[in-house]
Amino acid sequence: MNSAPASPQPSNADTVALDRAHVFHSWSAQGALKPLVLEGGLGSTVWDNEGNEYLDFSSQLVNINIGHQHPAVIAGIKAQADIMATVAPAHAINIRGEAARKITDHAPEGMNKVFFTNGGADANENAMRMARLHTGRDKIISRYRSYHGNTGSAVVATGDWRRIPNEYARAHVHVFGPYEYRSEFWSDSPEQEAERALHHLERTIQAEGAESIAAILLESIPGTAGVLTPPPGYMAGVRAIADKYGILLILDEVMVGFGRTGHWFAFEAFDVKPDLITFAKGVNSGYIPVGGVIISDEIAATFDERVFPGGLTYSGHPLAAASIVASITAMEEEGIVENAAMIGRDHIAPGLAALADKHECIGDVRGSGVFWALELVANRETREPLSAADMGKVKGALVKRGLLPFIADNRIHVVPPAVVTAEEVARAMAIYDEALSEL
Amino acid sequence: MNSAPASPQPSNADTVALDRAHVFHSWSAQGALKPLVLEGGLGSTVWDNEGNEYLDFSSQLVNINIGHQHPAVIAGIKAQADIMATVAPAHAINIRGEAARKITDHAPEGMNKVFFTNGGADANENAMRMARLHTGRDKIISRYRSYHGNTGSAVVATGDWRRIPNEYARAHVHVFGPYEYRSEFWSDSPEQEAERALHHLERTIQAEGAESIAAILLESIPGTAGVLTPPPGYMAGVRAIADKYGILLILDEVMVGFGRTGHWFAFEAFDVKPDLITFAKGVNSGYIPVGGVIISDEIAATFDERVFPGGLTYSGHPLAAASIVASITAMEEEGIVENAAMIGRDHIAPGLAALADKHECIGDVRGSGVFWALELVANRETREPLSAADMGKVKGALVKRGLLPFIADNRIHVVPPAVVTAEEVARAMAIYDEALSEL
Repeated sequence: MNSAPASPQPSNADTVALDRAHVFHSWSAQGALKPLVLEGGLGSTVWDNEGNEYLDFSSQLVNINIGHQHPAVIAGIKAQADIMATVAPAHAINIRGEAARKITDHAPEGMNKVFFTNGGADANENAMRMARLHTGRDKIISRYRSYHGNTGSAVVATGDWRRIPNEYARAHVHVFGPYEYRSEFWSDSPEQEAERALHHLERTIQAEGAESIAAILLESIPGTAGVLTPPPGYMAGVRAIADKYGILLILDEVMVGFGRTGHWFAFEAFDVKPDLITFAKGVNSGYIPVGGVIISDEIAATFDERVFPGGLTYSGHPLAAASIVASITAMEEEGIVENAAMIGRDHIAPGLAALADKHECIGDVRGSGVFWALELVANRETREPLSAADMGKVKGALVKRGLLPFIADNRIHVVPPAVVTAEEVARAMAIYDEALSEL
Repeated sequence: MNSAPASPQPSNADTVALDRAHVFHSWSAQGALKPLVLEGGLGSTVWDNEGNEYLDFSSQLVNINIGHQHPAVIAGIKAQADIMATVAPAHAINIRGEAARKITDHAPEGMNKVFFTNGGADANENAMRMARLHTGRDKIISRYRSYHGNTGSAVVATGDWRRIPNEYARAHVHVFGPYEYRSEFWSDSPEQEAERALHHLERTIQAEGAESIAAILLESIPGTAGVLTPPPGYMAGVRAIADKYGILLILDEVMVGFGRTGHWFAFEAFDVKPDLITFAKGVNSGYIPVGGVIISDEIAATFDERVFPGGLTYSGHPLAAASIVASITAMEEEGIVENAAMIGRDHIAPGLAALADKHECIGDVRGSGVFWALELVANRETREPLSAADMGKVKGALVKRGLLPFIADNRIHVVPPAVVTAEEVARAMAIYDEALSEL
């Protein structure tokens, strides 16, 4: 358990040299990259081949909800690999139907069909396609503080900086969403933040022309943008506005679905039902690349007689399906979603509150389940973000102490696997405490 | 070998019922779908759980180059699954570096880096992104007879009907390419077809403004569009025009790469070297979803200091990497690319020529390796395509005789795995002969 293997393996230096010779990395300048080597893991722990271990409080890209190397998921993949590793999407294979059934078991009433993709980006691409064709309208409204994927339309739906060098698709409109700690609406309470964000959304719809808008696309809780839990009333208000103007609501559950927030879907915490749900990451913890769209019966029926003009070679891949069936089954049987809720409530919340009491640099703490952000500031009054240089120091101090962090802008996202234990959270809190004390 | 398992399994009817309840299919109206059940396979044969076997002359979606359930690829996936199934792209893991090295071993000189994606669509998305950022220009030129993927920019680069309901990205221009059997250029020889297609391309570049064009994106041999092998001189001419105007050349090798045409890359048959190569499908025969871009050193260097604004959670997935290493190694050791070349030259070419001699409805035969098209016509003089109803009858007659065909418009694409044997080709030719005789 949790120990590095003894067998001879390439050194970290060899692996980094090979990587730098041949692997082009995401979202980076390539010249100065020094990637951390990881060659194995179990549960919330990962390691290289030289005896270095890390507590994975990043869940890699906030996606290893079930933890590393869950034996039931590995066994499910291997069993299907022995039978049939791949099949074209046009054919039927039982494991794919089972995966779709397992997913829709946890979806709201009246959402019974799944279109499988390779990941979250093409899940959002296909949800936008469905919304546009179902409504006969072009425009998609999404938030500036958002990320929806890296492909042509998904990256333009994205609101953050990653959109700007990639803006090659038309008919995307962005709005500001609620963010109490850094309000765009001069509000002074959660209620006012919700009310003003809804007013801004509705005025934008009116100014764009409601009849031109196919869908509102929102992460149920914006993730990389900062774990921006919407204030009470906001999501129900969005649903009401969408209904008023005949606009569809797509909820992006790529990062927050399948246990991350202590619910099967993050939107369950709010009074809202979407028309389309996009998922990836937590559905199988990334053991096989996969994503998809959960489709309302009404939208699915649009394509009973009409050709749906989207598709991809690996849609409904058998090994992805096997990993989904095994992962959801294990999450059900082992109470992993409930564990995430309990850990968030009883361990992470009080742990982070204690850190905030002690460290002046913590400006805000927010989250639920195993999905939290610490917002670090240079000044609590002005809320000026901690500098990139200081964030780099914090990151280095955490890694040095054996914690793999998730850092975004001036924030530490505290996002361990949903299987994390109270003891691991306690160890992580001690490491965060030491690293912040070094500042 | 090649026999269905005896153990109890869901019936075909059960599997279809589960599929129709929960699975939303690609590129289809959903109402009348009756998918064929497939639950296992080996080499060029697939089967359901009720004892029905099919000779897979579709390679599913023209992607199972190494055949079904190749033991070395299954073993490679299972071995890596036991160690580490998934890791974030920012970290380094040795198997990913090995996969990139294996791929670049077969690429031209001066193309040493690989950006991994989830499939062919996002490979093309990222190649277009690199080309736009490297050149500082917007427009992409591609062909009407083409398919480049289903995501926002890839589907707009696509030229065929699948573009039209999805046209939400700007700065894409389409041209006609060479197609000797149905020329758009009133040509009467391959030389004239090449010359006129090049003239049309160059005039379009001049009319659009060369300084606005980032890249020409071409399938080395358009695939689903009809196995449209370019006439001599065309590809070298495209390269010369691209160089003349400072435009990059992206070759889409998603369907044709890794042995399909009897070469590692299809462009090796032409006198051309691309700046970016996109791949997916044959690189690991779809055992794990994966794709990528092979990048020239010059373009890679653009991003040494500058952030590359693209990325995805599953980029360089360890199981995908393991399947690539195992698949390329097996293809090298077992001479699978050479087998594809030999089978095409010595068995498929003469077999299809004999069918064309016998059946008046075969208007054209073209291809190489395990990548061929039979163009079926109602009239050899007018070249009027065979009707959809008659194509449906041909398809039914093939499936009834135990051959899984690939049908596109009025064509049968003869596209078995690259491991297909002479005996299997002979059986397939007899089935094609019987099915065409039924017309």
